[in-house]
Amino acid sequence: MNPTLYPDISRPTLLIDPQRVQKNIQRMVEKANTAGVRLRPHFKTHQSAQAGEWFRPFGIQAITVSSLEMAAYFAGHGWKDILVAFPLNLRQINLVRRLSEFIRLGVLVECAGHVEALADAVERPVDVWIKIDSGSRRTGLAWNDSHAVLDLAGHVRQQPHLNLRGLLTHAGETYQSQNPDEVVQRFRRSNQRMNQVRQFLEQNGIDGLEVSVGDTPGCSLSDNFEGVDEIRPGNFVFYDAQMAQLGACREADIAAVVACPLVAFHPERQEAVIYGGAVHFSKDSVTENGIAAYGWAVLLNERGWSPRIPGGALVRLSQEHGIVRLPPEVFSSLTIGGLIGVIPAHVCLTVSALGVYRTLQGEWIETFVRASAPAGRG
Amino acid sequence: MNPTLYPDISRPTLLIDPQRVQKNIQRMVEKANTAGVRLRPHFKTHQSAQAGEWFRPFGIQAITVSSLEMAAYFAGHGWKDILVAFPLNLRQINLVRRLSEFIRLGVLVECAGHVEALADAVERPVDVWIKIDSGSRRTGLAWNDSHAVLDLAGHVRQQPHLNLRGLLTHAGETYQSQNPDEVVQRFRRSNQRMNQVRQFLEQNGIDGLEVSVGDTPGCSLSDNFEGVDEIRPGNFVFYDAQMAQLGACREADIAAVVACPLVAFHPERQEAVIYGGAVHFSKDSVTENGIAAYGWAVLLNERGWSPRIPGGALVRLSQEHGIVRLPPEVFSSLTIGGLIGVIPAHVCLTVSALGVYRTLQGEWIETFVRASAPAGRG
Repeated sequence: MNPTLYPDISRPTLLIDPQRVQKNIQRMVEKANTAGVRLRPHFKTHQSAQAGEWFRPFGIQAITVSSLEMAAYFAGHGWKDILVAFPLNLRQINLVRRLSEFIRLGVLVECAGHVEALADAVERPVDVWIKIDSGSRRTGLAWNDSHAVLDLAGHVRQQPHLNLRGLLTHAGETYQSQNPDEVVQRFRRSNQRMNQVRQFLEQNGIDGLEVSVGDTPGCSLSDNFEGVDEIRPGNFVFYDAQMAQLGACREADIAAVVACPLVAFHPERQEAVIYGGAVHFSKDSVTENGIAAYGWAVLLNERGWSPRIPGGALVRLSQEHGIVRLPPEVFSSLTIGGLIGVIPAHVCLTVSALGVYRTLQGEWIETFVRASAPAGRG
Repeated sequence: MNPTLYPDISRPTLLIDPQRVQKNIQRMVEKANTAGVRLRPHFKTHQSAQAGEWFRPFGIQAITVSSLEMAAYFAGHGWKDILVAFPLNLRQINLVRRLSEFIRLGVLVECAGHVEALADAVERPVDVWIKIDSGSRRTGLAWNDSHAVLDLAGHVRQQPHLNLRGLLTHAGETYQSQNPDEVVQRFRRSNQRMNQVRQFLEQNGIDGLEVSVGDTPGCSLSDNFEGVDEIRPGNFVFYDAQMAQLGACREADIAAVVACPLVAFHPERQEAVIYGGAVHFSKDSVTENGIAAYGWAVLLNERGWSPRIPGGALVRLSQEHGIVRLPPEVFSSLTIGGLIGVIPAHVCLTVSALGVYRTLQGEWIETFVRASAPAGRG
């Protein structure tokens, strides 16, 4: 690495390549347009009002978030159509009411308790999506329990301010696929299941419902969006080692890398110690040859960063230390006090852990994590 | 749970039991006093100036931190003797100089590059500790490479402002022990190795060195501190599921739990969905019967929280969702919109992820994470 590169970086710092971000957004926008589905990108990955602006030139107006406070943050930055893709948190029902007064707000329900609390709280229309479990077994009504879905849909339709918008799923099982074909198959199976539920509801008098699906692997790899009205991928804006390993992107599509100071070398065991630990990367991993890697090592350069160093991996994480495994020949090009790049295993968690990032051009991007009230405060 | 408990908590919130904290501190202080060793607690666990005050009545004046910016934070809150237990980061050498001008600063070195950069930078005395790898293979000079240690010690002694204080290790291998006996054995072995190095240096004209060791399992379980001058445990202030599983504490010593809103129930598979995910807990785990658990479930009550719900475990984490496995009979006492408690697997990472906590009595405790400039800024 050029030793004069980034003289101002002294701590683990997430760098973003805006050109790659632009291409990633454009690719997904074009795919959605071709398929005739609405792209409602999930903003939980970049978590930033500034980064959100990168989507507007592409005509994006509707977004997804993962918490009500994240909805409030983006509403405060001018987004008018926000879906909170998380089970309704009854302890924040006042925030639901407030948001419904000035934006088009979408929320998820999956039980009568959600519907009743919502109906009691709001005085303006709210879009209601029924959360369906189409195979991931995280949460939602089981796709094959059609009668339960029908009952809940009927319950929603009886409430004055609740606009039953559709059925929503997150086919999280695509992340556990072994290869891209399996991702596509699982995505397709999930979409078919959603349409079976929709059809059953139509046959029983509940019609006009949309189907919303969303996961970056499926939306990146599939070209078949039959029966889908809306997609909600998020990770695709940056991508990461998990997505590249799964084949959901090329390594060259990854737009995020953490620049980490090199603090100690152990070439005898092919390891370098970096300032960059679990509090910076979080602790998600990709598994390679049975070994967990928390990230992939690259060399930083004037244009961004190199392809992955062969075998270069962040193999251990303490609170602040990281241990990077490197081939012996790389050590001669590195110096203690220099920087090395690490592509995170799971960039959404790294963004949240670091709370701020900067572009290759040096612009600092603030996020919700830092801008909002401390997590944990009511 | 009493439904009126914590009406103001609407998001994942770390609760601290100050009585247990007091007992945990007192126990370690008494142990150190009995053994005649200096307790220099690691503040990376609580990361808070307010929590730091809890140590002062016990006579604690010297502390350990894991980064230079954390040193600056605690220096700014009146701590005058701070050891940065992390390999010297040459990119923050200006901060080393600044800190050395107004506190007693200790830093680690493990190569000539560290020593030379330090000697060039400082104009006031700095305590220098040589980092020894006594078995954890994280970083430091190998304990059995005595000549390398001797060379480096001689190098430090030649520099005008560098005060060679001693030899330092972190016997991180205790965390991987299978039982308390093994922790004690590994801790003892590490201490013996440190003293072999010290003895070799003494025989070669470098005398008067201290030995500093530190890890919560070893310091909690061992009563033998022979050859040790200073201990630096940190986690013991709160403890967590990892420490209880290892036998380093009793479950009743754990002083930290995350209160999480219950957002959906799936009693048919004995699971509840909580607002509380990887961005709140981070993603460290304990392994139980071959299954990773990110935390242990408890019931919150007026006095704090119950013993662990039998088998209750946080078994899956998405970005914001957590899946808690619960025995069937517990569901009848829970309501959607209620709270459940989760003892974190690794509390240091949870503190860092949440950035703020509150006592059972309702006092909010700010941390370094929130008070400092955003991570990643130089």
